[in-house]
Amino acid sequence: MSKKVITFGEIMLRLAPEGYYRFVQAENYGATYGGGEANVAVSLANYGLDAAFVTKLPKHEIGQAGVNSLRRFGVDTSYITRGGDRVGIYFLEKGASQRPSKVIYDRAGSSIAAATTADFDWDQIFEGAEWFHFTGITPALGDNVTEICLEACKKAKEKGITVSCDLNYRNKLWSKEKAGQVMGELCKYVDVCIANEEDASDVFGIKAANTDVTSGKVNHEGYKDVAKQLSKRFGFSKVAITLRGSISANDNNWAAMLYDGTDFYFSKSYLMHIVDRVGGGDSFGGGLIYACLNDFAPQQTIEFAVAASCLKHSIEGDFNQVSVDEVMKLAGGDGSGRVQR
Amino acid sequence: MSKKVITFGEIMLRLAPEGYYRFVQAENYGATYGGGEANVAVSLANYGLDAAFVTKLPKHEIGQAGVNSLRRFGVDTSYITRGGDRVGIYFLEKGASQRPSKVIYDRAGSSIAAATTADFDWDQIFEGAEWFHFTGITPALGDNVTEICLEACKKAKEKGITVSCDLNYRNKLWSKEKAGQVMGELCKYVDVCIANEEDASDVFGIKAANTDVTSGKVNHEGYKDVAKQLSKRFGFSKVAITLRGSISANDNNWAAMLYDGTDFYFSKSYLMHIVDRVGGGDSFGGGLIYACLNDFAPQQTIEFAVAASCLKHSIEGDFNQVSVDEVMKLAGGDGSGRVQR
Amino acid sequence: MSKKVITFGEIMLRLAPEGYYRFVQAENYGATYGGGEANVAVSLANYGLDAAFVTKLPKHEIGQAGVNSLRRFGVDTSYITRGGDRVGIYFLEKGASQRPSKVIYDRAGSSIAAATTADFDWDQIFEGAEWFHFTGITPALGDNVTEICLEACKKAKEKGITVSCDLNYRNKLWSKEKAGQVMGELCKYVDVCIANEEDASDVFGIKAANTDVTSGKVNHEGYKDVAKQLSKRFGFSKVAITLRGSISANDNNWAAMLYDGTDFYFSKSYLMHIVDRVGGGDSFGGGLIYACLNDFAPQQTIEFAVAASCLKHSIEGDFNQVSVDEVMKLAGGDGSGRVQR
Amino acid sequence: MSKKVITFGEIMLRLAPEGYYRFVQAENYGATYGGGEANVAVSLANYGLDAAFVTKLPKHEIGQAGVNSLRRFGVDTSYITRGGDRVGIYFLEKGASQRPSKVIYDRAGSSIAAATTADFDWDQIFEGAEWFHFTGITPALGDNVTEICLEACKKAKEKGITVSCDLNYRNKLWSKEKAGQVMGELCKYVDVCIANEEDASDVFGIKAANTDVTSGKVNHEGYKDVAKQLSKRFGFSKVAITLRGSISANDNNWAAMLYDGTDFYFSKSYLMHIVDRVGGGDSFGGGLIYACLNDFAPQQTIEFAVAASCLKHSIEGDFNQVSVDEVMKLAGGDGSGRVQR
Amino acid sequence: MSKKVITFGEIMLRLAPEGYYRFVQAENYGATYGGGEANVAVSLANYGLDAAFVTKLPKHEIGQAGVNSLRRFGVDTSYITRGGDRVGIYFLEKGASQRPSKVIYDRAGSSIAAATTADFDWDQIFEGAEWFHFTGITPALGDNVTEICLEACKKAKEKGITVSCDLNYRNKLWSKEKAGQVMGELCKYVDVCIANEEDASDVFGIKAANTDVTSGKVNHEGYKDVAKQLSKRFGFSKVAITLRGSISANDNNWAAMLYDGTDFYFSKSYLMHIVDRVGGGDSFGGGLIYACLNDFAPQQTIEFAVAASCLKHSIEGDFNQVSVDEVMKLAGGDGSGRVQR
Amino acid sequence: MSKKVITFGEIMLRLAPEGYYRFVQAENYGATYGGGEANVAVSLANYGLDAAFVTKLPKHEIGQAGVNSLRRFGVDTSYITRGGDRVGIYFLEKGASQRPSKVIYDRAGSSIAAATTADFDWDQIFEGAEWFHFTGITPALGDNVTEICLEACKKAKEKGITVSCDLNYRNKLWSKEKAGQVMGELCKYVDVCIANEEDASDVFGIKAANTDVTSGKVNHEGYKDVAKQLSKRFGFSKVAITLRGSISANDNNWAAMLYDGTDFYFSKSYLMHIVDRVGGGDSFGGGLIYACLNDFAPQQTIEFAVAASCLKHSIEGDFNQVSVDEVMKLAGGDGSGRVQR
Repeated sequence: MSKKVITFGEIMLRLAPEGYYRFVQAENYGATYGGGEANVAVSLANYGLDAAFVTKLPKHEIGQAGVNSLRRFGVDTSYITRGGDRVGIYFLEKGASQRPSKVIYDRAGSSIAAATTADFDWDQIFEGAEWFHFTGITPALGDNVTEICLEACKKAKEKGITVSCDLNYRNKLWSKEKAGQVMGELCKYVDVCIANEEDASDVFGIKAANTDVTSGKVNHEGYKDVAKQLSKRFGFSKVAITLRGSISANDNNWAAMLYDGTDFYFSKSYLMHIVDRVGGGDSFGGGLIYACLNDFAPQQTIEFAVAASCLKHSIEGDFNQVSVDEVMKLAGGDGSGRVQR
Repeated sequence: MSKKVITFGEIMLRLAPEGYYRFVQAENYGATYGGGEANVAVSLANYGLDAAFVTKLPKHEIGQAGVNSLRRFGVDTSYITRGGDRVGIYFLEKGASQRPSKVIYDRAGSSIAAATTADFDWDQIFEGAEWFHFTGITPALGDNVTEICLEACKKAKEKGITVSCDLNYRNKLWSKEKAGQVMGELCKYVDVCIANEEDASDVFGIKAANTDVTSGKVNHEGYKDVAKQLSKRFGFSKVAITLRGSISANDNNWAAMLYDGTDFYFSKSYLMHIVDRVGGGDSFGGGLIYACLNDFAPQQTIEFAVAASCLKHSIEGDFNQVSVDEVMKLAGGDGSGRVQR
Repeated sequence: MSKKVITFGEIMLRLAPEGYYRFVQAENYGATYGGGEANVAVSLANYGLDAAFVTKLPKHEIGQAGVNSLRRFGVDTSYITRGGDRVGIYFLEKGASQRPSKVIYDRAGSSIAAATTADFDWDQIFEGAEWFHFTGITPALGDNVTEICLEACKKAKEKGITVSCDLNYRNKLWSKEKAGQVMGELCKYVDVCIANEEDASDVFGIKAANTDVTSGKVNHEGYKDVAKQLSKRFGFSKVAITLRGSISANDNNWAAMLYDGTDFYFSKSYLMHIVDRVGGGDSFGGGLIYACLNDFAPQQTIEFAVAASCLKHSIEGDFNQVSVDEVMKLAGGDGSGRVQR
Repeated sequence: MSKKVITFGEIMLRLAPEGYYRFVQAENYGATYGGGEANVAVSLANYGLDAAFVTKLPKHEIGQAGVNSLRRFGVDTSYITRGGDRVGIYFLEKGASQRPSKVIYDRAGSSIAAATTADFDWDQIFEGAEWFHFTGITPALGDNVTEICLEACKKAKEKGITVSCDLNYRNKLWSKEKAGQVMGELCKYVDVCIANEEDASDVFGIKAANTDVTSGKVNHEGYKDVAKQLSKRFGFSKVAITLRGSISANDNNWAAMLYDGTDFYFSKSYLMHIVDRVGGGDSFGGGLIYACLNDFAPQQTIEFAVAASCLKHSIEGDFNQVSVDEVMKLAGGDGSGRVQR
Repeated sequence: MSKKVITFGEIMLRLAPEGYYRFVQAENYGATYGGGEANVAVSLANYGLDAAFVTKLPKHEIGQAGVNSLRRFGVDTSYITRGGDRVGIYFLEKGASQRPSKVIYDRAGSSIAAATTADFDWDQIFEGAEWFHFTGITPALGDNVTEICLEACKKAKEKGITVSCDLNYRNKLWSKEKAGQVMGELCKYVDVCIANEEDASDVFGIKAANTDVTSGKVNHEGYKDVAKQLSKRFGFSKVAITLRGSISANDNNWAAMLYDGTDFYFSKSYLMHIVDRVGGGDSFGGGLIYACLNDFAPQQTIEFAVAASCLKHSIEGDFNQVSVDEVMKLAGGDGSGRVQR
Repeated sequence: MSKKVITFGEIMLRLAPEGYYRFVQAENYGATYGGGEANVAVSLANYGLDAAFVTKLPKHEIGQAGVNSLRRFGVDTSYITRGGDRVGIYFLEKGASQRPSKVIYDRAGSSIAAATTADFDWDQIFEGAEWFHFTGITPALGDNVTEICLEACKKAKEKGITVSCDLNYRNKLWSKEKAGQVMGELCKYVDVCIANEEDASDVFGIKAANTDVTSGKVNHEGYKDVAKQLSKRFGFSKVAITLRGSISANDNNWAAMLYDGTDFYFSKSYLMHIVDRVGGGDSFGGGLIYACLNDFAPQQTIEFAVAASCLKHSIEGDFNQVSVDEVMKLAGGDGSGRVQR
C-alpha cells in the first residue's frame, strides 16, 4: 500500500496563449489546470504515492474538468467538495528572452475562496495519511480559508501527520503584515518549511545577516543564516530554500539548499532552457516530500527535489509529469539529454 | 459623414471549445469577445455606420484585448472607461443534433457590473448621436447599472435620440418580478422594442390572448396580439418580434414580425444550418437599427433584419461579419449559397 | 456507495485525422482511446456508478496514456494488468455524405490479445460487484482471451453477478463459424444480450421468420422474432436490439427494442446529425446497464438507452460524455437543441 | 503499363481559412494547391493512370510545393517548366447555409499566364499519350496561353490523341465574346466536351429551345437540346453536362447527362452534404475520362463520373482523393455511408 | 490630445508556416500583416500616440483584413485609399540555428505599387501632424510611388513636420545606383535618418574610413564616421545606426548608436533569443520616434529605441506589441525575464 | 540524366506530440514518416539525384500515405512492394534541456519485417543504379530481412554498384553478438562504412587503443584508430565517423571524420540549437553519398556531409529538406543565420 499524502488549496483554470503569443494577440487559450498544492499532488501521484487533493469546486463542467485534470494523473479527488460559484482563473503569457512571463489573476470569488470549515471533514480526510502539505497562497485567499487551514493543521498535528508548508508569498493577495501574522500562526504546526529567496523576508522579515548582496555570487552564507533563523523561530525540522538565478525568460539557473537543523546541504546547480516556468517551485516541494517520505539521506533528498524541479521546467503546464526513475537518472548525473530509444 | 449610434452594455470574453467538443473534453478554448450590445455595434460598424460601444473594462491586457476586438471591426471604443477588476467571461459549448448548446456564465464582479454613473459622461457620448441601444441584460447586472441605463435613457430622450431595447430576459441574472419592474421603468424611454417569443411573457407577463398553442403552427395572431399589447403599454413606435423554431441544435427556422403601430409585417422564414447560434438575436437588432436609420419601408426593414440574422447563424463568434450588400442579396431572395467567384 | 460494475476487453489508441480529412491527407492524428467495453465503463462512470475496466496494457507511456484516459473520466483502473508489448491501434477516417467512415485496425499482438488467465484475479476483481459486461470482440482476440472470458463469466455466475454481452460481430477478427461456437458457449452465462440488426444472424444464424425485407419499413415483427429466438436458445432474461437506419454518413435514424421475455418495447426513433458515430452501440449498452441497475421500467429502460446513444452520436471520440440528467431530458422528449444558459 | 493522359493548365496556391471562418476573421490559411486541369490529373493518378500535368511554375519553394502537391498523389510532374515570377493564388472562404462560398483570385502575372510556346515541347510531352485534357480557364489566361493551347490541340490531333475540354467559363478572366471566339477555334480539335448548366450559353450563346424554365423541374429536354446543338456545331463525339441544384451552401443536388451523338444518358441524382465544393466539376471530368479510356458503356460512364464527383464533395481540398473501388461502390448504389471496418 | 504621426508605405499579407517548418513542408500559413512603415505605426499606437498609416489597399476582404489588422491595435486607418487589384504578399520561413530565415516576396502589382499622386491628399493627411515617417522600401516600389513620397516630403517640410526615413535598402526592388539617386533626392527633406550596418554603403556608397574590419570587434569608430558623413551630406539633425551581430538564426546581439550632430551615444548591447526577427528594425524606428517626440535625452533616446526593438525580437509577427512601461523597464536595466504576477 | 541510387529498409509512421508535450499529455500526434534508409533517399532526391527507396508496405491507406510521403519529395517509389499487414510505428517525444527525447518503437510484424526474398527483384531494381545504401537496422528486423539484404549486397557487388552501410546499432532489435555476426557477413560487400561513436564498439567490439576517455576532449586519435581497424577488417574504401557532443536535449556539438584508407579528414564542428534531432545521422549519410557520387575531394566531402546534417537538426521531421546550395553555403562558412530576402 502506497503512502497517503493530503494537499489542500486552490486549483485554477490556467488560460495561456500558445507558444510565445502575447495576450493581445491570442485567439486561443490552452486550457489546463494548476495551483500550488494541486501541482504537488500530481507530482506525488506520478511518483506512485496515494496523493489526495482537497479543495472546493463548482458543480458545473468547468469545475468537473478541474477534477478530471487531477484524476487523469492519478490524484485522489474524492475529498473535493462540490459547490460554490466559480473556478479561479489565471491567464499566463509566456515570456521569451528579455520579455518576462506575465500572470493575470482572476480568482476572486472562487468556490474555495468562499468555502467554510463546514466544507471539509478533516478526520475523514486524514484517515491513514502520513503527510499534509499546503502553501502560503491558500490562507491568503481569506480569513475563512485561513480558518480551514488552521483546523487542518491542528488536526494533522493531533494525528501525528507531518506538515509541510511552502511560504509562497503573493503580494496581490495580501500585505506582508497580514501574511506575517497569519503564517506565523500556521507555522507553529509546520514541520518542513519550503521557501524561495524572498519569501522569508517578505513574510517574516527574516533577512540574512552580514551578507554582501553586491558580490554577484550566490550567497551561501546568507541562505544558511535565513534557514537557521526560520528553523529557530518556528522549530521546523527541515528548511529547504530554492535558489533561482534568472538569466532571461528562457534561461535560468536552479539549485537549492536543505537545512536539517544541524547541517546544510547544497544541491548541484542546473542551467535550464525553460519550456514552462510555472509550477517549478511546486515540483521542488513534490520532490522534497517524496524524498522525505522515503527516508532519503539529506544530500540525496535535496538532489532529488532539485532534479525533479529542473525537469519540470522542460514540461508544459503546471504539473510535473516525471517518474521517479527520470528524476533519479538526472540526480545521478545524466543531464546530457541524449535520445532514449 | 455616417450616422452615429451608441450601444451600452457588457462585453465578455467568450471561451468556447473548438468544433463540437464538450467542456470536459476541451484542451483549448477559442477566445473571442461578445455581448448583446457589443454585437449590435459590430453589426452597425460593418454596415458603415459610426457605431460606438460604451462599457467599462479593466486596464490589463485581457481588457485591452476586448477593446481591440471591437476596434478591429471598426467600432469606436473611445468612450470605454478603463478600470475595475475583471472581464466577464462566458463559456460556450456548441451543441449538435439533439444535444443543446450550453452556456456557463462567469460574469459576477466584472468592471461594468461594478461601474457607477460617475464612469460615463452621457453628454459627451451622445454628442452627434442619432440612436441609442441597450438590452435587458445590462440593467440586470445590478442596481448600479440600472441607474446608469436610466441616466442614459433620460439623456437620450432629452436630446431627441431614438432609443431601442432588446428585452432579452436572462433568468440567471434576475427574477421575472425584478425584471418587470426595472424594464417597465426603462421602457418608458424606449422607442423601438425588440423581443423574442418568450421575453414579453417573462418580463411583462404579456401573453397572447385566445391562441391555440397546440395547433403546431406559427401563431401569427398571437404574435400580433403581444406586439399590440407591448406597444400599447409603453407607447413603442415599433415592436419587432423574432420567431425561432428549433428543430435541432443544427437546424432552426428563423423569421420575425414588425409592428409599426398600425400594421404587421411578417418576414420570410429561413431554414438554417447553424454554424454559431450565439448573437443571432443581436444581429437581428443590428439589422433592424440599420434599416430604421436608413428609412427602409416596414416590409423591407423586417426582411433586412431577418436576412442579417440568418447570415449571422452561418458565422463563427458573436459578431455578425456581413456587409449591407450580402444582407441585401439574401433579403432579395438569393439563398442558394452558390459559390461567388 | 455507488454500484460496482466490471467491464473487460481491449482499449485501443484511436488515431483519427481531424474533421473530414482522409487518411492520405492527414498530417496529424487526434489521439484518443476507446474500445467496446472501455466505452461502456466511461458511460457508467459518467452516470455516477463505480465502473472498473479490466484489461492488460504495456508499462510504457502509450499504455499509461490509455490508463489516464479512463481515470480522467472516473473509471477505476486499479485492476488493469501492466505488461506486454503494445497497445492496439485503430485508425479512423470520418465519412461524410455518401462517403463512408473507414476503420483500419492495427491490433494484432496487443498486450490484451497476448494475455493469459494468470493475468487476472477475478475473485478480487468481482469483490462487491453487481454487474459484468463484455462484448463479442474480446473473445475474438484469441483462444487465450476466450479462456479469460470464460473464466470471468463462470466466476461472475458463481457470485450471482449479472452478466451482459454485446454480440458485436467483427469479421476481421474471426469467422462466423468460430464466433458462433465460442459465443454459444459464453452466452450460457449471459443474462442480458445486446445485438444490432445483423449480429444475431452473423453469430448464431438466427434470422427473422416470415418477414418481407423488401417492404422498406422497419420490420418490427422480424426483430421481435429474432429476440424471441435468442432468448429461447440461451435463456437471456433480456434481449435488446438496436435499429440503425443509415441515410448517409452524416444522417442516421436510431432506435431500439427491448424484450424482457414477455413483452416487446420499442423506443422512439431519432433522426441524428452525426458528429462521431463510433461508440454509438457501446453508449447504448452503457445506458441499458444503468437503467437495469436502477430498476427502470422496461419502456423507460429502452428509452434511456436509446437517448443515451443518440446523444453519443453528437460527441467526439469513443466515449459518451453525458450525464444522467442530459439523457433523462432527451428521453423525456426535449430534442429541440435549444441553447441552455 | 497504364494509359498516359496529359492535362495542361494552371495550378494555384489555395489559401482557405479553416472551417467556416470568414476572410476577415482568418488568422491562418490552410495551404493546398489546385486548379481545373491539375485536379483532373490527380483524379486520374488516383485511378491508377499515368497522368501528367503540364504547366509553368517558379523555381522558388512556393513553386516547388506546388510540384510536390502533385507528386505526392502520383502525378507525373516531369513536364512542368520551372521559371517565371509567381504562383497564382486563390483565396477561398467556405460558405454555409444561406451564405455562399467566396473566391478571390490573385492570379495575374503567374508563371503560366506569362508562358510562351517555347516553354513546352508537345512532341515530347505527348509521347505515348492517349488523352489530352484542358479547360476554358487556361486559354482565358491570355493570348499567349491560347496560342500554347492551340499548339497542343493541333499536335494532339496530329498524333491521334483524344482531346477533351471542360468549357468552364470564368467571367473574371474574359468576356463572353472573347471566350466564344477563342473557344470556338479550340473546340474544333475537341472530341469530348464537358459543360455545366450555364457554360454553353455563356460561351457559345447556345440555349435550350422551347423549354419552360418556370416549371421548377430539372429540364431534361432542354439539356438534350443544348447537347445536340453543341455536338452539331463542333462535331464532338461526346457531350457531358453536369446538373447542379443548389439548395444551400451545405446541400446540393448533383447529376449529369451524357450524349454520345445518338442517345442521352441521365445519371442518378445525389443529395449531397458538402464538405468542399471546389473541384466538383473537375472530379466529374476525371471520372468521365477514366470511364472513356476504359470503354465503359455510356450509362456506366455517366454514373461513374457523377459518383466520382459526388464523393469529391465530401473531401477537403481541390483534389478528389478516391479510388476506382470507392467510385464503383457508390455508382453501384451504396450511398448509405455505413462505417467500413 | 496625443501627438499625431503619419507613416506611409506598403502593408503586406505575411504568410508564414508555423514554428520552424520549411515552405515545402507547410500545410498551413499563419496570416498576419506587416510592412516597414505599418510596423512603425503600430509601435507608436501602442505607445499611445495618434498614429496613422497611409497606403492603398484593394476593396476586397483580403484588403479589409489588412485595414483591420491595423485598427485592432489602434492605428488610424482613415487615410487609407481603397482600390487597386491586390495586396502584396510575403512568404516567411523562420530559420533556426545555422539555417537562415527566408523571405519570398510576391508584391508586384499591389495596389500601393500601382498608386498615383491622385490617391492621396497630403494636406488633409498632415492636418495637425507632428511627424512623418517612411522607409527606403516605399520609393523602391516604382517611380510613381517615388513621386508620391516626394510630394509628401515636400508638403511635410512646408508644414514644419519632422521627417524621418529608414534607408532600408532592398536589392530585390532596385539597384544601388537607382536607390542612391532617388534616396539622395528624398533625403533632402529628411531630418532623422535611420540605417543599419550596410544601408549607408549600399545606398550612398558611404563607408567607414580607416577601419580595420578584421579586428572582430564592433567597430565604434567606423560607425561614428559613417554617421558623420551621412549627417554632413544631407544635413540630418539625427542619425541612428543599428548594430546587429548574428550569431545564429536563434541568437543575435543587438545595439545601436545615435549621433545628434555633436555627440555619439552608444546603447547597451543585448544578447537576444529570437522569437521573430522580422520588424526588428521597424520597432527601433518606432522607439526612436517616440523618444524624440517626447524629448528624451540622447542617451535615453537610443536606450529606449534599442530596448523597444530588443523586446520586438521576442514577439511573433511584424508588429511590436509592447507598452512604454515595458520598454522603460528593460531600458532601465531589468532584462532578467522573471515572471510578473 | 541524374545518377540512380537505391536505398533499402523500413519506413515507419512517426507519431510525435507537438512541441515539447510529453506522451502522457498528448491529445494529438503529428504524423510523418521516416526511417534510416528512407531518410537518405529523401536527402538524395532533394539534391537532384534519382533516388529510389525499396521496402514493403501494406496496401491500405496508412501504407499509401507512406508511399506518398516519399513521392512528395521526389523519391522513386516504383520498387516498393505492396502487401503485408502493418506499417511499423514509432512514437517520438521531443526532449528539452535536461529531459531527453524518448522513442517508443511499435514495429514488430510490419510488412517489411515479414517480407521474403521473393518480394524484391534486385536485377530490375539495380538496373542503371550506381549506389546501394542500407543500415544496420534493416538486417536486425529478422533473419528473413537479413537474407534480403545479403541478396541485394551480392547482386550490387556483381553489378559493380558501390555499397554503403550505416552500422546504426539498435539494442532493442538484436544483441551485440547477433549484430556482430550478421553485420560481419554483410560488411564484406560494403565499400563505404558509416558509424557513430559507439557503433564500431557495439557491433564489432572495435575500440580505440590507448585512449584516455577521461580527458574530456574529443579524442581524435581514438577515432582514427577505430576507423583504421574497421577499414582493415572489412576492406572499406571509406570510413566516416560522426562525432556528437550532447550538451543538452537542445544543444549539441556535431562534427565528423572521414578516413579514405590513407588520410584522416576532420570537419568543422557546429554548435547546434536543435529543432529535431531524429534523422541527423541519416542526413549525414545522404550528404556523404552525394559528395562521393560527385567526386568531391575528401575534406570537401566530410564538410558537405556534416553541414548537411547540421542543417537537418534545424528541420522538423525525419527528412532533411535542404538543397545542395544551402549545404554548400553552410559548408562554405556562413552559419550566421542572417535573413535571406
